[in-house]
This record gives sequence, C-alpha cells and structure tokens, in this order.
Amino acid sequence: MKKFINNVDDILIESLSGFAAAHADIVSLNLEPHFLTRKQKAENKVAIISGGGSGHEPLHSGYIGYGMLDAACPGHVFTSPSPDQMLAAAEAVHAGKGVLFIVKNYAGDVMNFEMAAEMLPFENATVLTSDDVAVENSTYTTGRRGVAGTVIVEKVVGSLAETGADLAACKALGDKVNSRTASMGVALTSCTVPAAGRPTFDIGDTELEMGVGIHGEPGRRREAMRNADAIVADLVAAILEDLKPTPGSESEVLLLVNGFAATPLMELYLLYNSASKLLQAHGLVISRSLVGNYTTALDMAGASITVTLLDDEIRQHWDSPVHTAALRWQC
Amino acid sequence: MKKFINNVDDILIESLSGFAAAHADIVSLNLEPHFLTRKQKAENKVAIISGGGSGHEPLHSGYIGYGMLDAACPGHVFTSPSPDQMLAAAEAVHAGKGVLFIVKNYAGDVMNFEMAAEMLPFENATVLTSDDVAVENSTYTTGRRGVAGTVIVEKVVGSLAETGADLAACKALGDKVNSRTASMGVALTSCTVPAAGRPTFDIGDTELEMGVGIHGEPGRRREAMRNADAIVADLVAAILEDLKPTPGSESEVLLLVNGFAATPLMELYLLYNSASKLLQAHGLVISRSLVGNYTTALDMAGASITVTLLDDEIRQHWDSPVHTAALRWQC
Repeated sequence: MKKFINNVDDILIESLSGFAAAHADIVSLNLEPHFLTRKQKAENKVAIISGGGSGHEPLHSGYIGYGMLDAACPGHVFTSPSPDQMLAAAEAVHAGKGVLFIVKNYAGDVMNFEMAAEMLPFENATVLTSDDVAVENSTYTTGRRGVAGTVIVEKVVGSLAETGADLAACKALGDKVNSRTASMGVALTSCTVPAAGRPTFDIGDTELEMGVGIHGEPGRRREAMRNADAIVADLVAAILEDLKPTPGSESEVLLLVNGFAATPLMELYLLYNSASKLLQAHGLVISRSLVGNYTTALDMAGASITVTLLDDEIRQHWDSPVHTAALRWQC
Repeated sequence: MKKFINNVDDILIESLSGFAAAHADIVSLNLEPHFLTRKQKAENKVAIISGGGSGHEPLHSGYIGYGMLDAACPGHVFTSPSPDQMLAAAEAVHAGKGVLFIVKNYAGDVMNFEMAAEMLPFENATVLTSDDVAVENSTYTTGRRGVAGTVIVEKVVGSLAETGADLAACKALGDKVNSRTASMGVALTSCTVPAAGRPTFDIGDTELEMGVGIHGEPGRRREAMRNADAIVADLVAAILEDLKPTPGSESEVLLLVNGFAATPLMELYLLYNSASKLLQAHGLVISRSLVGNYTTALDMAGASITVTLLDDEIRQHWDSPVHTAALRWQC
C-alpha cells in the first residue's frame, strides 16, 4: 500500500484540517466531535446536513456552502459517523426551521442518523438516497445503495432550502429527486482501506467488476474487460431499465459521469461521449451534465454513470447558484 | 493495461467530443485540425492560446472560457500539437489585439509553437512556463519543465487580457508569474501511455520517484517510500530553495497541491495540511489555495506542490472572475 499518509490513525484529522484550511473562506471545522459547517451560518432556512464514512471526497464536506449543505459529518474511512456528530452539527446550524438529513442507504449510516433524529430537539426529517441499481441488497445495505446520485439530491434540495421552503417541501423534493435518479458503476481495480493495508478485493488484469459499490462491494458480476462502449452500454441499459423514461414526456435528463478517484478525466469524458450517444439514441435529451470525481471510492479506478429525469422544478434547482469547495456556479 | 477506451487511435477524438458535449455552454470543438475555443468569441482583447500533448486534463481545454484561455490545441497523448492547429486556433480567436501563446517548456511544444508564431499573420508573443525545479534538463526538455504552475500563469494572464491590456503587458505578466512560481512532484506509480500499453517506468511497491515529470520523466532520485510529512518536506525545501522568498517582504503565497490523476482528494488535502504547516513555519502566509487534479499525468498516482509568490497584481488577477470547465469562481 503506497499512500500519502503519516499514521493511519491520523489520516482523517489531517485531511480534514487540510480541507478546512484550503477552504477557510467557505467552511469551518469542529473537532470533538468532528463536523464541518458553513463559515457563515445561514438563517431562516431548513438546515441541510449530510455525512457518512470518509474516502468518498469531495462527498460530503466538499458540498458545504451556499446552495447546498449547511453541515457534514465525516466518519472514519468507510465507517459511519456517530450520532453525537450529527447532534452537534445540528445544534450548530439549526436556524429555526428544522433539520433535513440526507443519508446514503447503508445500514450503519441509517442506524446512526436514526438515533440522532430521535434525540434531536428540533423538527427533522431524513431523505435516504438509494440510486444504485446494481443490486437490491448489498454487503452493508438492506435495499439499494446510495451512491453518486446523492450529489444531485444534495444540490437540488440545498437550492430549495435557500428559498426558505419548509422541511416537508425539502423532504418531498429530495425523495422525488432520488426516485428519478439511477446510477451504476464499474471498477477496474479495487480500493485499499488504509487501516487494512491491502486491496478490498482481488481483480485480475483483464477483469472488471460490473455494478461495484463505492466501498468495493460486489456488483452484479465479474466480467472480462471490454471496450468503453460495451461497458457503458451495460451501465446505461441497467439505468434505463430502472428509470423507464417515457421518451417525449420525460425526455430531458441530467447525465453525471463520476470517477471513483483513479480514473483520468480523459477517460471520464470518453465515457461521457459513449453514454450521451446511447441516451440520445433512446430519445433522451441531455440538457445538464457533470463529469469528474464527485463521489469517490478511496483509490479505486473505475467510474459510475448517473441519470436524473429532469422536470422544471429539478432543473431550476440544479441551475441555481451554488458555492462550495467542489461545486460552484453562478456564484 | 485497463483503461476506459475503445480503440487507441480514437481516444483523443472521443474524449474531446465528450468534453465539448458536456461543456457545450462554454466551449466549441473544431475538427481538422483539432482545437477548442470559447463558445462566444471574445472581442477587443489579446487572444490567449495554449496547448500541448493530451493526458494532462483538465490542462489545457478545461481552462478555456471567460477570464482564462480563448483557445487550446490538444496534441495526441504526450505529443505536441502541430503548427496548423495553433494557426487555425489563432485565426478563429484573434480579435485584433494580437495572440499570446502560453507554452510549457518541452522541446516539441516549443518548436511547434515557434513555427506557428513565425507563420502567424498577427502580432504575437509567447510565455514559456518552466516552473518545475526538479531538474535543469530532462527527457524532452532543454531547461526546466513547465508543469502545474502553468495553470496559475493561464489564470492570471487570462484575467489581465480581459481588461483589454495589450500584448506586451500580458506577456510581461506571464513571465513575471512564471518567475515567481516553482513546483516539484512525486510519483508513487508510473503512468501508462495507451499506445505503448505498458507503464512508462518501473517502480517498486516501496519506492517513489522524487521530482518526477508529468510524462513520467525521471526526477531527482528514486527513493524508499516515506511518510507524507517527509515527502512534502523535500518538495517544499526544493521549491523554497528556488524561490528564495524573503519573509516579510514577499510573505504572501498561493499554494497549489495538484494531483497527477490517481491520488484521492483525501490524500491531496492531507498533503496540503503538511505543506501549509511547513510554509507557515518559513514565515509565509498562504493567502490563496487550490487543491485537486489540475495538471495530470494520465493515470499516475502522485502529486506536485506549487508555490507562487503573490503580489498585489498577481493576487488581483487570481481572484478575478473565471468561468471555465475546470476553474470557476465569482462567475
């Protein structure tokens, strides 16, 4: 295992400290317990809080800021944060209109956010993301996994919250975006959890893992390596089988090609090229796009494709201003 | 070699097509010869054009747009673009105030941009970037290599050009930024050029290449893997030995921690944490920061550190609005 680290036990705090220092104009880091908030506390809005195991950067800390999250709670690598983190974060950012947790559907995260929700002295609700169509249940999951589509949920709900919308409306929009979003990924290599020191799974030089999870969980099947068009065809077919878009009435989509960390941007754009042609051949119009490392899996080589069926409301909140470390436009 | 590609010969055009489609609001792609320009041609400014071999994305295409480049000329992977690309790009974006080429110092790029400059029917000048302090001459270089500091030159000069400044002023500022910028990188793995199909160099599981170039060129020495603080100490020492900042009078710096592609953001922020402490211990104030994959080396695991000595002029042009695929703020 070759990584840029000092001691395995210090990775999280050293990385968070670097993140907070590099983006001191946007975020503040709290220690004991660990959470990050916006530099300037927002007022008169639902507080949007996410979190989960580390190793998926920029998810979630990179999405703190105007138009997106109020706070994020990072757990250790691939480990859920604990309820005291969510409670302290909620205390710090609650602005009188309640708290919305956005949680990826993994058993540990669900349990800990539920515990926090029960103890929270504020009105609260939770949006569970479950966009990964690869498998119904998984290593750490009952039901589908939440993966890169979570970024889209956080962006869209974060935008609505800035308008002063109430908790029920934010929760409803989050659930809607999740229901209209589907993702599937593929790995060319494993990731290596620093504390384990060896790859999470073995994969040969001519193999790929179709439907891999963002912690290296098994996907649908191990396959022989194929060309990009063939790989993308399988990913897009699985996504469209789930979303079942009606060409014409729901023809407008957002296409996210997400890198798991070790795949170069040059290849991600090549995947985008393949995916966009397939979606267009299905009668879909790609009116919004995002390409890059937005939900990663430590040092895994691989990528995922996410499609969201847009409507006027989702498009409007996708386009609205956002100012975070990792997403920034119309700022 | 596992990469997301179809045929090796089609990588560049498929990736460029995906890039242009994903960012159709910002860029236009021209085929035969290949170059990319801003979607909306800028008027009444010096045209800023860069280019070089592909495989360093988002450099340079990702920096086309308001406040930065007018056009970029991508060569094949790690191969200089040809003069016909620069000439056609210049023809497309020239707006009556001359053309400034920003060129990384590699023999092939220098030769081809020089040929284009000689044939160009417009007033023109060239800024050569040479920020890599690792080695004086290198595999493809007479003199120092141009690496990630090129992004800072492109941002700052691009901003000045938007003000309507003349060619001489743009050239002078570019040279100044280059002279106040120093970088050095380290590789944990090799990169693999698709057409070669095997790693550019061999490196052991417990080794690193200190001072590596962005094409996998040899650096200063092959070393045993060490912890992040020790690696960063060597990079920062080499940079400061070159820049020789005078604490107090030149105490304000921009710190860029750049990933070569396969190194996770979590580790890049950890490197930032190490580097920022060292720079502060040297009496420097880090007033601007950038962390991410901004100048990559295909699929190499590794990172570089870049420091620019700021002054009021450079800081102002760093902070000014920019709207490109890969850098966007105050947009």
